[in-house]
Amino acid sequence: MTRIFGDPSSFVDEALQGFTDIYSTYVQRVPGGVLRSTATPEGKVAVVVGGGSGHYPAFAGYVGPGGADAAVCGDVFASPSTRLVYDVAKAANRGGGVVLGFGNYAGDILNFGLAAERLRADGIPAELLVVTDDVASEGKGANGQRRGIAGDVVAFKIAGAAAEAGYDFKGVLTVANRANDLTRSMGIAFSGCTLPGETEPLFTVPDGHMGIGLGIHGEPGISEEPTGTPDEIAELLIQPVLDARPEGATDGGRIAVIVNGLGSTKYEELFLLYGRIAAKLRERGYDIVAPEVGELVTSLDMAGASLTVTWLDEELERLWTAPIQCPALSRGQVIETTPAPRFEPPAQEQADYSGTPAEAAAAGQRVDAVIQAVAKALHEAEPELGRIDAVAGDGDHGVGMARGSRAAAEAAAKASAAGAGAGSVLAAAADGWADRAGGTSGVVWGVLLRSFAEQLGDSGKPDAAAVARGARAAFDGVTRLGGAKPGDKTLVDALAPFATTLSERVEAGDDLLTAWAAAAEAATAAADATKELRPQIGRARPLAERSLGHPDAGAISLALVTRTAHAALQS
Amino acid sequence: MTRIFGDPSSFVDEALQGFTDIYSTYVQRVPGGVLRSTATPEGKVAVVVGGGSGHYPAFAGYVGPGGADAAVCGDVFASPSTRLVYDVAKAANRGGGVVLGFGNYAGDILNFGLAAERLRADGIPAELLVVTDDVASEGKGANGQRRGIAGDVVAFKIAGAAAEAGYDFKGVLTVANRANDLTRSMGIAFSGCTLPGETEPLFTVPDGHMGIGLGIHGEPGISEEPTGTPDEIAELLIQPVLDARPEGATDGGRIAVIVNGLGSTKYEELFLLYGRIAAKLRERGYDIVAPEVGELVTSLDMAGASLTVTWLDEELERLWTAPIQCPALSRGQVIETTPAPRFEPPAQEQADYSGTPAEAAAAGQRVDAVIQAVAKALHEAEPELGRIDAVAGDGDHGVGMARGSRAAAEAAAKASAAGAGAGSVLAAAADGWADRAGGTSGVVWGVLLRSFAEQLGDSGKPDAAAVARGARAAFDGVTRLGGAKPGDKTLVDALAPFATTLSERVEAGDDLLTAWAAAAEAATAAADATKELRPQIGRARPLAERSLGHPDAGAISLALVTRTAHAALQS
Repeated sequence: MTRIFGDPSSFVDEALQGFTDIYSTYVQRVPGGVLRSTATPEGKVAVVVGGGSGHYPAFAGYVGPGGADAAVCGDVFASPSTRLVYDVAKAANRGGGVVLGFGNYAGDILNFGLAAERLRADGIPAELLVVTDDVASEGKGANGQRRGIAGDVVAFKIAGAAAEAGYDFKGVLTVANRANDLTRSMGIAFSGCTLPGETEPLFTVPDGHMGIGLGIHGEPGISEEPTGTPDEIAELLIQPVLDARPEGATDGGRIAVIVNGLGSTKYEELFLLYGRIAAKLRERGYDIVAPEVGELVTSLDMAGASLTVTWLDEELERLWTAPIQCPALSRGQVIETTPAPRFEPPAQEQADYSGTPAEAAAAGQRVDAVIQAVAKALHEAEPELGRIDAVAGDGDHGVGMARGSRAAAEAAAKASAAGAGAGSVLAAAADGWADRAGGTSGVVWGVLLRSFAEQLGDSGKPDAAAVARGARAAFDGVTRLGGAKPGDKTLVDALAPFATTLSERVEAGDDLLTAWAAAAEAATAAADATKELRPQIGRARPLAERSLGHPDAGAISLALVTRTAHAALQS
Repeated sequence: MTRIFGDPSSFVDEALQGFTDIYSTYVQRVPGGVLRSTATPEGKVAVVVGGGSGHYPAFAGYVGPGGADAAVCGDVFASPSTRLVYDVAKAANRGGGVVLGFGNYAGDILNFGLAAERLRADGIPAELLVVTDDVASEGKGANGQRRGIAGDVVAFKIAGAAAEAGYDFKGVLTVANRANDLTRSMGIAFSGCTLPGETEPLFTVPDGHMGIGLGIHGEPGISEEPTGTPDEIAELLIQPVLDARPEGATDGGRIAVIVNGLGSTKYEELFLLYGRIAAKLRERGYDIVAPEVGELVTSLDMAGASLTVTWLDEELERLWTAPIQCPALSRGQVIETTPAPRFEPPAQEQADYSGTPAEAAAAGQRVDAVIQAVAKALHEAEPELGRIDAVAGDGDHGVGMARGSRAAAEAAAKASAAGAGAGSVLAAAADGWADRAGGTSGVVWGVLLRSFAEQLGDSGKPDAAAVARGARAAFDGVTRLGGAKPGDKTLVDALAPFATTLSERVEAGDDLLTAWAAAAEAATAAADATKELRPQIGRARPLAERSLGHPDAGAISLALVTRTAHAALQS
């Protein structure tokens, strides 16, 4: 249960504000996260870590000398937006490039991935450190790889130590990725967690049971079993980790060990469990180096525990045991520091639309009206979309769509009032959505609308052919970004017939409104038909089965947007 | 809920074992707790802290350079026995004397107090640092003073820093007591905690409510109110602390601040709350120095939060911000250390009873038989005594009596088998009970039986007059130790008529068995009559009211022991 909060939507911001106040010798607040408050040398590789909030000490607790240079903090359990990752990374860059570290989840892959592209476009070396330690999720994470859980701590610690030691960009990336390759984790959960403002837990585990391999956001695990003895729990965690021993890792030898609580497991319980685990690992010929036991990567008030093992070579051991001083991890000799200058956010460039022809500005106003109607409709549909999403997801689709479209509407209104044309109004809406929604739907809708906008232009009133090209570009952009194909039970299932029907009807000579109406109808029918499909991406099998007979929330909301846009264009 | 445990009775021991394994660079295991594993200079004042377990990081988490020298760890929520305090303090002593730090609870006052007496008898300077910060408990703690909660951290940290800096015994004691005098705390609780092996929480707070000033073992607070906003909670904590500002403390100025979670409040919630508290304190003109926010003094999985403020002078600020490296607290430059030699427990002296006359050894066997019968009776009565105690206490009386009498029975059997006389068998039972039961009843029964034993002697079969003197000595010992008078609703209410009746009847010429039967009857009637009484010591008013109509568990068990002894003496 989360009990101390005001407005749930500002929970993360207020917690970060307090955190930065307490740990001001380590960190300073920047939009989207925290940055070291101590100076780092010019040319140092910046290690920027992040993901959704609610996992403290991940991620902000690992920023400081010997650790990360900055953390990007999304909303609770939601990936930070591409823009926030980009902004924080840019603030952290000291000319040596940026290693972006995060656990392997779909939204983070998209947002950190796009941010890395933008950084590279600015001439800043940027690569991903995707943590994939959770052996219980074999094949269930993004890209079919394992998810990332407490292995984050090892990968981030080693990346931070390498960067602190003066490794170059490639060197930091290589050793941190090797640390991840040599790290495996296994977890169990005793109870779920409750989001700020909610009265019901996000998921539950029956009393007296443990969810084996249950994910840190309640992603289903391998099985549910009666709570075991400490010895049984120790074996349940050790055996799968050792069975998944990385290629080339020795059976026996020197290992880093983390026993992690997931939020509300007591220290005493973790110590007791560690004692059993350590004894069993030693019996099997392992030497434990500098273990860490505590609440290291949590899920709000979830109860549970995980074991992480990293097979060490000489270099990894040196970096694992190197000094670090962070809010949540402190080791070895104090690294001397001097205060860094206060971060000054770069001045926002004001877009200048003064040269837009009147007809184009009128078209911009029309696009704005559509976006306003879409935001209103998604606000009203929020609870219903949440319910649909809860069948096979974490139920946050409605909230994410409402937040994103509200941000889009604000940006569109501002651009339209400043006289922007259709393309620029829609582009502003796209950026507003992507920058402020976060999560997976935020980045997807940002790309969708951005791709659409680029076909409209600002020179006049876009014709039907331009709009049809926009829809096709949106389809291309989204499928390229997320890798989803029609039939995968995603919004692509509704977007594909929408774009195809719109193009066909426009080519056949229909006017825009008539063609759009037919396309929206096709999207709606296709969204409804996703009931028959099983998800192919990012869903574990039990959830995929459970979703049969229920439509995909993303497809349903896409169809709703197309119908709402039609009604708005008509009026 | 505590979920990871094997045998509940070895929970503390196994957790400490794991803890010592993880933090072996800081601590080593000694019987009764942990001792620094790093060397300290000859003549350094030893700071030894402790109390019941289940409060981690209190107490073992604060042992290390710049912090405490050792921690004594009792069973969950039960004071460590006098013997354990004495043993750990003796192991920690480097010739500079021992400051014994603990929160103000009845059992700790007794056990640490008696241990200090024993240490002084050995020529080791030993004084108490009794932490009394909880303003919600004004007048409710032992000795009518406030209870100790998270103020422990400040008092222990400052004592540790002073000792590390080379202060002499009086200097450490003086500055640490001043730190305590200038420290005030206030807490709220959202939910109770569950002991290892129990399925029901020790106490509950209604959903959506918070217990204002509720103690860390569920001691009742001031009131129960609906959960407030973060601002309301911040005010609820700040105002009583500032209202209780110590004499001589400035209104405004430099303060140390702790925002403490009680076990399962999330970091994010604590950070958010700290942000509000810090803003409000600054508005009132306070400067916050080196705040600590986290799980610092917990109660297993209890949910709640507390605020601690220490008004700093220059010396206290210097010591508060001085370097420390402990498992649970790390600050400033690393204090250079070298490993200490492994602790070697002193060899146990074997008692030699070879000179005991045969008649005296026979009397010893008889006393042993009585103790065995008492242990059996208390084992059988355990659930019933627990139920009686739960009305106005924490329900652990039955467990404590069963554990204590079992230890007494083992010690008595050993002494009797070695040929000890009546006095020595009973003294062995007394020490076994006191050393291994812990808590308040352990130390009380230890003193009771020890005082009794000293009147019996080992020279032959004790006569009725010696036994009557024993009972009176037991009464004197217990009342001197605990300060309870007849009518306070304690075991003294049954012990007083037992001792008086036994003496009167023996003086009147009754044989021992007849006199004992009458005395046991008087004790039983008096125990039953405690139903009419309100507790006068160590119980808050709501509990005192609740206990009306219910007998005192301590008096009931005393009466049961006297009846059992009679039956055993008869057979």
